Amino acid sequence: MAARLLLPAAMLLTACATAFAQGGTPDSIPAVYRELSRRIVAEGLRDCRSHALLAELAREAPHRLSGSPGAERAVSLTAAMMKRLGFARVRVESVVVPRWERGSVEEAVVLADGRRDGFNLSVCALGGSVGTDADGVTGRVVEVKSLQEATSLGASVRGAIVFYNRPMDPTHLNTFQGYGGAVDQRSGGAVAAARAGAAGVIVRSVTLAHDDVPHTGSMSYVDSVKQIPALAISTADADSLSRMLKTGRDVRVRMRLSARTLPDAPSGNVLGEIVGSERPDEIVVVGGHLDSWDVGHGAHDDGAGCMQAIEALDLLNRVGFKPKRTIRAVMFMNEENGLRGGKAYATEPARALERHVAAIEADRGGFAPRGLSVDADSVTVLRVSRWTPLFAELGAGRIVRGGSGVDISPLVSRGVPGVGLVVDDHRYFDYHHSANDTIDAVHPRELELGAIVIALLAAILANE
Amino acid sequence: MAARLLLPAAMLLTACATAFAQGGTPDSIPAVYRELSRRIVAEGLRDCRSHALLAELAREAPHRLSGSPGAERAVSLTAAMMKRLGFARVRVESVVVPRWERGSVEEAVVLADGRRDGFNLSVCALGGSVGTDADGVTGRVVEVKSLQEATSLGASVRGAIVFYNRPMDPTHLNTFQGYGGAVDQRSGGAVAAARAGAAGVIVRSVTLAHDDVPHTGSMSYVDSVKQIPALAISTADADSLSRMLKTGRDVRVRMRLSARTLPDAPSGNVLGEIVGSERPDEIVVVGGHLDSWDVGHGAHDDGAGCMQAIEALDLLNRVGFKPKRTIRAVMFMNEENGLRGGKAYATEPARALERHVAAIEADRGGFAPRGLSVDADSVTVLRVSRWTPLFAELGAGRIVRGGSGVDISPLVSRGVPGVGLVVDDHRYFDYHHSANDTIDAVHPRELELGAIVIALLAAILANE
Repeated sequence: MAARLLLPAAMLLTACATAFAQGGTPDSIPAVYRELSRRIVAEGLRDCRSHALLAELAREAPHRLSGSPGAERAVSLTAAMMKRLGFARVRVESVVVPRWERGSVEEAVVLADGRRDGFNLSVCALGGSVGTDADGVTGRVVEVKSLQEATSLGASVRGAIVFYNRPMDPTHLNTFQGYGGAVDQRSGGAVAAARAGAAGVIVRSVTLAHDDVPHTGSMSYVDSVKQIPALAISTADADSLSRMLKTGRDVRVRMRLSARTLPDAPSGNVLGEIVGSERPDEIVVVGGHLDSWDVGHGAHDDGAGCMQAIEALDLLNRVGFKPKRTIRAVMFMNEENGLRGGKAYATEPARALERHVAAIEADRGGFAPRGLSVDADSVTVLRVSRWTPLFAELGAGRIVRGGSGVDISPLVSRGVPGVGLVVDDHRYFDYHHSANDTIDAVHPRELELGAIVIALLAAILANE
Repeated sequence: MAARLLLPAAMLLTACATAFAQGGTPDSIPAVYRELSRRIVAEGLRDCRSHALLAELAREAPHRLSGSPGAERAVSLTAAMMKRLGFARVRVESVVVPRWERGSVEEAVVLADGRRDGFNLSVCALGGSVGTDADGVTGRVVEVKSLQEATSLGASVRGAIVFYNRPMDPTHLNTFQGYGGAVDQRSGGAVAAARAGAAGVIVRSVTLAHDDVPHTGSMSYVDSVKQIPALAISTADADSLSRMLKTGRDVRVRMRLSARTLPDAPSGNVLGEIVGSERPDEIVVVGGHLDSWDVGHGAHDDGAGCMQAIEALDLLNRVGFKPKRTIRAVMFMNEENGLRGGKAYATEPARALERHVAAIEADRGGFAPRGLSVDADSVTVLRVSRWTPLFAELGAGRIVRGGSGVDISPLVSRGVPGVGLVVDDHRYFDYHHSANDTIDAVHPRELELGAIVIALLAAILANE
């Protein structure tokens, strides 16, 4: 080491980079953790049990929108799963959740105009949308690329159906940046269009995939503006619709939806633990959100994160690791359309008797891990960064300061350091919130490797 | 930077790690390359043209075993592709290649034994296997886990069919290690079994996937030992066959193959260039192998590497980069069963007039890049490592010393530094050498990002 200090700074940086790149484990990593990593990797990759757990969830409770029968089956199933695996203090903490139902009708028909037969577009209702009556809502389609454009059109869109068609920008390395740059059309498009007098909105699916599958997701209204129905349209049909509009002819569409919002319903967060041997009331939370949209299996979003949390604890049990602090798996309810579970967890009276050391969340899909995103002060970030060589061996050495997870954000806002699992996200939005998000889109090794990283991080946080 | 030098070494390592992990671009990276990277990323990810090129190859020439009509179509197609894209000095350099044909018959039938009806196993001939006559070869199945075990059985396997059933070890983080630990059964199993007097061999597919698809690959004979037929069996059927054998009853199988080796045939390596503006005779090679097995599309292996090489040059052309040295894309012929193309390229008389600065190969599947494997002396490795921060931003910051690529190995053995693209390999062996290796198993962004890394590396090597 001493020799390195004689090198000029640029060379030293190079030497560091090489050391890390080569997955070297400098003396700064205690042997006990190098050995723990080795054992967890071998145990985890042997049969990738997280994938078997996820397959069970996908089979028994594929649609888990808050308040639905599927969500309640998932609560029972994961509680039973934790008990079966021997977790301690398995319980359900009550959460009252919003309840929205898609219903059986969701369609957008391009009406016949004498030159062209009518036909159906590939659409699905956005989560939270109001429904229509049986006749639906009919209007001329007006394509826009932004909320601002919709608002600025004013009277010319009165009674029309506003079609938001700004694609996700594919040129970002990080697909979440592309998502963030397009999702305002989905979340706020109905309000902006209704302000201008529109009768309904159709929103291009927020995905980089070009296919026939519409992607849903949450949207919202404000009290002062009329609630108009909102549909997502597949990217392939968005392009078709746009081409039709470019001919200059009027395109009229009839939207029909049976979506509706029901009264709030009882549900819960599911908790299970490895109780700490020395400081049982100091908690490391490991979690994901159990609710999902009501299409596909919610496999990547976020069955993956939930099953990785359960597998992380089970992995530590299987290799005989005894944490000093308590490691708790939490299946948060209602991330997709309310965050009621995350808020309830943070404010539950039982929390007053506990001290949360850290919270880890995985909610970016069950892909190969690349690193950790630490939501804390810079001293904490530096502390976590000390473990970089250990995580780099698992391909997850990119430790950055940044957002951690939505479900744990109420804990983070109370001062608990949050850590998000950063994964390879190139494929995520192909599946996200759509019928594409199924168990067969999740690779057993990639999923398991995320569980391995979480297990190792939880072990370190529980004992250091 | 100065402040950092005051920190103790361990802290400094941490600081470095954090800097790299955060994708910082230290001052050691010239602004011109940071800007080039930014432009190549935006240009590449916009429409991921490497995937469209690969789809064209998969459609026009899916089966490209050396000497086959498919391989010759691929030679014409890629030469035409390079001309269409405006590459300079596009040409085919002659290579004489071995020619093996699978033929139409490849079967292994478990014979009826009075308690059980006969049935077919899911098998395919291993590349290079001899065929059988129309009656095939029939024998009792003897399961072994290693070449050594087959040899040690001696007379007890005379006339039997030896069934190699040692699985790939899934516990390695790097799947190539698991592959390396199992592939001897495929490559050398027939010789070892024939030495003991066996009539044929059936080899468990070298894959971590558990499905019904057999994976082929090369095997070889030696002159002094009888040539017996060799089949690969799917992992699912390998497990079934093993379970049957565990009952203790004799299991008899009839193998029939119409495989045969034909006389060597003419073929070629395809070359195309961006001619260097200052040192045109100094060459940076970028390549993959154009031949593939005769199942699937050879999409990951190695259509991906070939199309990434072409896209890398096209990307540099599209952003207007003018290299000082020549950057040459090479589609090598006959990696899978002979390496004739790699050898011919290195010894071609034209090479005597050129100086090769470096050779880059991508042949580990079209997955997200993780780093570079540098096959050169340690000074060269350190020189490449200086660029770590630039590649880390693309997720490819793991720069290690190690093997580069089979096709460029004849260049490397002549002293040319070789660089292999290291990718996320968890899924590779699910597809490798099987009908699973199709265009839809390759993700456009993951493939393109590899092309981007190659383009950037080639640009640096061509100008620095």
